[in-house]
Amino acid sequence: MPHTFVRLFFVFIATVSVFAQSLPSEKVLMGFSAASSAKQKALEAKFDAGLKKENLREWMKRLSARPHYVGSPYGKENAEFMLALFKSWGYDAKIEQFDVLFPTPKTRVLEMTAPEKFTARLEEPDLKEDATSNQKNEQLPTYNAYSADGDVTGDAVYVNYGVPADYEELAKRGISVKGKIAIARYGGSWRGIKPKVAAENGAIACLIYSDPRDDGYFQGDVYPQGAYRNEHGVQRGSVADMPVFPGDPTTPGVGSIKGVKRLDYKDAKTVMKIPVMPISYADALPILRNLGGAVAPASWRGALPITYHLGGANAVKVHFKLAFNWDIKPIYNVIATMRGAELPDQWIVRGNHHDAWVNGADDPISGLVAEMEEARVIGELAKTGWRPKRTIVYAAWDGEEPGLLGSTEWAETHRAELKNKVAVYINSDSNGRGFLGVGGSHTLEKFINEVGRNIADPQTKMTVWERSRAQQIVSGSASARKETMERADLRIAPLGSGSDYTPFLQHLGIASLNIGFGGEDGGGSYHSIYDSFDHFTRFGDPNFDYGIALAKVCGHATLRLADADVLPFEFVNFADTVNQYVAEVVRLADAMRDETAMTNQLISSGMLVAVQDPTQKYVVPKTEKAVPNLDFKPLQNALTRLKESAGKYQTASGNTQMSASARKSLDEILLKSERFLTTDAGLPRRDWFKHQIYAPGFYTGYGVKTLPGVREAIEQRDWTEAARQIKIAAETIENFAAEIDRAAALAQTK
Amino acid sequence: MPHTFVRLFFVFIATVSVFAQSLPSEKVLMGFSAASSAKQKALEAKFDAGLKKENLREWMKRLSARPHYVGSPYGKENAEFMLALFKSWGYDAKIEQFDVLFPTPKTRVLEMTAPEKFTARLEEPDLKEDATSNQKNEQLPTYNAYSADGDVTGDAVYVNYGVPADYEELAKRGISVKGKIAIARYGGSWRGIKPKVAAENGAIACLIYSDPRDDGYFQGDVYPQGAYRNEHGVQRGSVADMPVFPGDPTTPGVGSIKGVKRLDYKDAKTVMKIPVMPISYADALPILRNLGGAVAPASWRGALPITYHLGGANAVKVHFKLAFNWDIKPIYNVIATMRGAELPDQWIVRGNHHDAWVNGADDPISGLVAEMEEARVIGELAKTGWRPKRTIVYAAWDGEEPGLLGSTEWAETHRAELKNKVAVYINSDSNGRGFLGVGGSHTLEKFINEVGRNIADPQTKMTVWERSRAQQIVSGSASARKETMERADLRIAPLGSGSDYTPFLQHLGIASLNIGFGGEDGGGSYHSIYDSFDHFTRFGDPNFDYGIALAKVCGHATLRLADADVLPFEFVNFADTVNQYVAEVVRLADAMRDETAMTNQLISSGMLVAVQDPTQKYVVPKTEKAVPNLDFKPLQNALTRLKESAGKYQTASGNTQMSASARKSLDEILLKSERFLTTDAGLPRRDWFKHQIYAPGFYTGYGVKTLPGVREAIEQRDWTEAARQIKIAAETIENFAAEIDRAAALAQTK
Repeated sequence: MPHTFVRLFFVFIATVSVFAQSLPSEKVLMGFSAASSAKQKALEAKFDAGLKKENLREWMKRLSARPHYVGSPYGKENAEFMLALFKSWGYDAKIEQFDVLFPTPKTRVLEMTAPEKFTARLEEPDLKEDATSNQKNEQLPTYNAYSADGDVTGDAVYVNYGVPADYEELAKRGISVKGKIAIARYGGSWRGIKPKVAAENGAIACLIYSDPRDDGYFQGDVYPQGAYRNEHGVQRGSVADMPVFPGDPTTPGVGSIKGVKRLDYKDAKTVMKIPVMPISYADALPILRNLGGAVAPASWRGALPITYHLGGANAVKVHFKLAFNWDIKPIYNVIATMRGAELPDQWIVRGNHHDAWVNGADDPISGLVAEMEEARVIGELAKTGWRPKRTIVYAAWDGEEPGLLGSTEWAETHRAELKNKVAVYINSDSNGRGFLGVGGSHTLEKFINEVGRNIADPQTKMTVWERSRAQQIVSGSASARKETMERADLRIAPLGSGSDYTPFLQHLGIASLNIGFGGEDGGGSYHSIYDSFDHFTRFGDPNFDYGIALAKVCGHATLRLADADVLPFEFVNFADTVNQYVAEVVRLADAMRDETAMTNQLISSGMLVAVQDPTQKYVVPKTEKAVPNLDFKPLQNALTRLKESAGKYQTASGNTQMSASARKSLDEILLKSERFLTTDAGLPRRDWFKHQIYAPGFYTGYGVKTLPGVREAIEQRDWTEAARQIKIAAETIENFAAEIDRAAALAQTK
Repeated sequence: MPHTFVRLFFVFIATVSVFAQSLPSEKVLMGFSAASSAKQKALEAKFDAGLKKENLREWMKRLSARPHYVGSPYGKENAEFMLALFKSWGYDAKIEQFDVLFPTPKTRVLEMTAPEKFTARLEEPDLKEDATSNQKNEQLPTYNAYSADGDVTGDAVYVNYGVPADYEELAKRGISVKGKIAIARYGGSWRGIKPKVAAENGAIACLIYSDPRDDGYFQGDVYPQGAYRNEHGVQRGSVADMPVFPGDPTTPGVGSIKGVKRLDYKDAKTVMKIPVMPISYADALPILRNLGGAVAPASWRGALPITYHLGGANAVKVHFKLAFNWDIKPIYNVIATMRGAELPDQWIVRGNHHDAWVNGADDPISGLVAEMEEARVIGELAKTGWRPKRTIVYAAWDGEEPGLLGSTEWAETHRAELKNKVAVYINSDSNGRGFLGVGGSHTLEKFINEVGRNIADPQTKMTVWERSRAQQIVSGSASARKETMERADLRIAPLGSGSDYTPFLQHLGIASLNIGFGGEDGGGSYHSIYDSFDHFTRFGDPNFDYGIALAKVCGHATLRLADADVLPFEFVNFADTVNQYVAEVVRLADAMRDETAMTNQLISSGMLVAVQDPTQKYVVPKTEKAVPNLDFKPLQNALTRLKESAGKYQTASGNTQMSASARKSLDEILLKSERFLTTDAGLPRRDWFKHQIYAPGFYTGYGVKTLPGVREAIEQRDWTEAARQIKIAAETIENFAAEIDRAAALAQTK
């Protein structure tokens, strides 16, 4: 999986002078004294000078030379190759193995038997323009991992993106997927949501196809002429129900180490309950073209040259058969440690996965090679006498694609130690040409803004920070633009899921960042055999300039976090962000109240039914209970407290007179501060997710829900739950504020 | 041309009781006393009872049996057929002939010579499902009337909808159409704008195709399976520069009567300066597929299964040859008069055109047959002893399709008499199943709301007024919905152009209405050989129920206007509407000021260029002069005056004690009131258009511009002109208010 691409938002000083080059920045770095700051900048300059983009190219070529999915021979070779490199760079490196459930298909049949006969191809053709596309023997076939086995025949129904709102539209037209096969298009949610919601609605199977509107010729020229998905391209991917928990479905909450008690896969909660398979638009077209029934709503229509119908009305008979090898496979995390000279029990962990669905040049190798180059140069620096104050851990995760397996099993196995020691986790995944994107904990927002302000953009005369800011100003809405121009820092995005930060941030409560460049690397190679060295070096980041930029951003962040006199957390930006989230959930409830009242009125007055075309079937929705006035006071009071505490720490921090031991005590509070944003009980329906501010959406998948307990209760119209969650969130924020108060008190001591 | 379909907006009383049937309404009708009102309602009941939908079907079948465009034998037959009918119904009927320039093609060639060879078909195939589609000998070929002759070869450039903003986008990408052939898609503006703007930008020719996104399979199943345009369907139509003036291009401003001085067509201002032709999407596809260069912006991409490129980069060679017979042809307006018993010099004119591009069952026969049935039943009523107080004139216009020829030449010929006598012009054009749509003079808004409140909808238990209102509430934005629920009357749309009301409203200053049903009659037969009886009776209004509804709305309106004690004009709604327009132009200037300042800042700071992908060509736009603060005071003061006057008349009106002669004097003021919204000098660049409140847009064509002098000066950034136009509009409104004051004073007399 790649990072969900997010953009930094940025502030504006209304003069041309901001574009003048002023690298490195003159001011004292967060968490450093003037003296240590100067030293750190000198170190960063050496670091930058050491980075070599030829390494990125060479390693990408090597690591993406053959398919390297979970359990593949080349995956293991890659791990061993990296292990040797980390060792050669002076790291204490090892491979940590886990054994995980990893199903691979043994039977895949998709055919239409009526009204015409058609057998789906289910295969991506090799191309002479793509050197690795012909490695048929080693490629995983096109499939969704953790689909159920099945052999079903039924009518097809087109369900758009297959999210809950789509089923409400179908219901208004009197269409149900019960006993039928749902055909959904990729997009609009994480893929695993589609079969889950289809199954909740009674579908017996689900097909997911890439519509050329979202992922094909509508977007740009198709491969190999251009970068976009061609008619036979297929997006592989996991459909494990990761919003419930990621990692091995058969070992929920515990590491899949030798001898662990393991569920039967049939009892595993996150294994999909119906068969599901991804298909190309060439394979989807004959089915979609034959669907009868009502014409799909305008926003549901894709770019195939047909009238999109919903189906369910005529006899489109689809036969769909899937069977899997439900194997336990080894995965190999590469863990490389450089022990801190002064504070060895304070860890900065930096990670990127190494497994891919096929060759994975972009996903994940483009991010991985940047991480490797960071590690190499830091290794070189360490050979010249410098040592980090804190411990740096470089990780290359295996098994991210099927379900964040490597990172999750590692986090679950080492839970106690990690909660005790890890200050920050920095993740990357895919990377490409374009704009800096950062998501993460807002306690690190100011810090990562500072880092970004100091890195030159490879294509312009700006810093990467300035270019992202310009992008936000140029393309933002009037209000977003105004904020960007007035705010000191660019906003970073909250994290949902989709890459290896999830177990750290949302399960262990470790402050995390997810960093990558993109936006000028458009294409459609994602999770296909065309995610290759040939594709990436034409369309991704041909010169690896943005690979180097990523190495700089993540390398500087890692080095600063490792070397700072005091960990550079900051809480005013965090409080400002939570303030936004609280305002959002209040508005959400208000909007639902107005909308519910209006819809109920339109239903009961008969207006809704009167405006429907009487020649078309229409089922009037039921009225909803009125939305009560929720008491948001506890949350608003907690917010007030949080702002005060954040202000106090801001005033107190920057004290350069502190003793080493006071600094260490302060660090220990800061290091664990994010833990206080979690609760042991976790979120309703999914207690693996402990974080009360950020979570992937139960019905969006990757998409983040901030204040998830409160927000999802409102969305689900569970008002009792919403009231309870408001209290829990308020309490959590109060506890967090108390820790900030402790930090502020300590920061004033000598 | 059909009416631009507009919807009434409607008011809400938040109870279910509004849906109870209460026809006919109990209250006294506008312009009537209690006694005359009761009499009028009884007359309307008789009128309704007389309407027979079998007549509509029979006449449509007859009138659309063969192609009947300008100069065709069947067009003349139709006129004579109607003449005989009107006479048989007791009207003083005649045919008024004019002689007009009407070019028809003698040569049409379109071919691509590189990179591949392709010759366009340029013909719509006949279909066995459509009985009249095989009348090849009588059909006009697919073409645009008033295109220039030409024989050109050049590269093709895709220009999206071909409006000015599209050329700004092209310029940013360094693409010019100079010396090239612009290929535009239908939609986004009236078709004549596309070649006009292409020529302004230096194109040597223009092709206009129907993209399946806007007009084809994306919208619904194509003909004959469904109602929508199939791959070979072509939209014929005029490209005369009608926003300058409609009517015969060679006789601007004067009637094309025998012996009129006529320009050579080559000197005619409204004849297009470059060759232009409409084509099907099957004919456009090979050209579009071969275009190279940059990928088109997302909003420019249609539904063809290709990546849309802008062209201009590779050698797509298009050869395009057009030659016309520049003939003068006769047109035949049918004019049927029923002289008023009391006020014969106060006329109510009711019109619909009879010419079509081909068979024209929908456009215009669906509206025409409703008008004919109105006329027939009114004729029957007159035979029973009733006579209208005022004169009723029924008109069936010829030559509407090429350029409102019949109505314009008639209006120009009879200018003095019409300005003196016509109180109201009521137009219809196409009609179909769905919702009532009304556009027109807002002095008639309250009146037509009253009419609509009294007509039952054929498909629901509501009135047509209630169903339109429900539609506006269900689909409106939150603010539009709120207004609709709170306002007593539904708003009617302002009129731009596109049908025969234009010469009456915008040239002569006669208060006008344009009325039609639609919204559930979707399809793509417009201006093709498939606009047939077969198509209409499957998809348009199969049972002619909405034809009868149209006859009721227009018939009641005509009868009430003809019989009212005092003409039912009202000015409070008008003032409220102008208030909106003034607020809009103020906001427009403010928004342009902010936007210009921001864009200039983005340009001069370098941000705009910095966010562009440096691998793509990008030409930074020039900065614009700052938008000054315009002085809107004169307009706002005039508005205050208008509101006062409107209020005064509202208070004074409804006086049932007036003498017949006072009523007549009052009527004479009211009858001419709309004239005071015009100026003799007309609008800048197009003095034929005299109305200062409503005009078709110079760069939108059909699309209305309200307060056109002010609004277009602002849009064109001509600040001197804007200041001048504010004064002109203000003066016009003041003069109009003075007339209302006169009316108010008279209304209080006995």
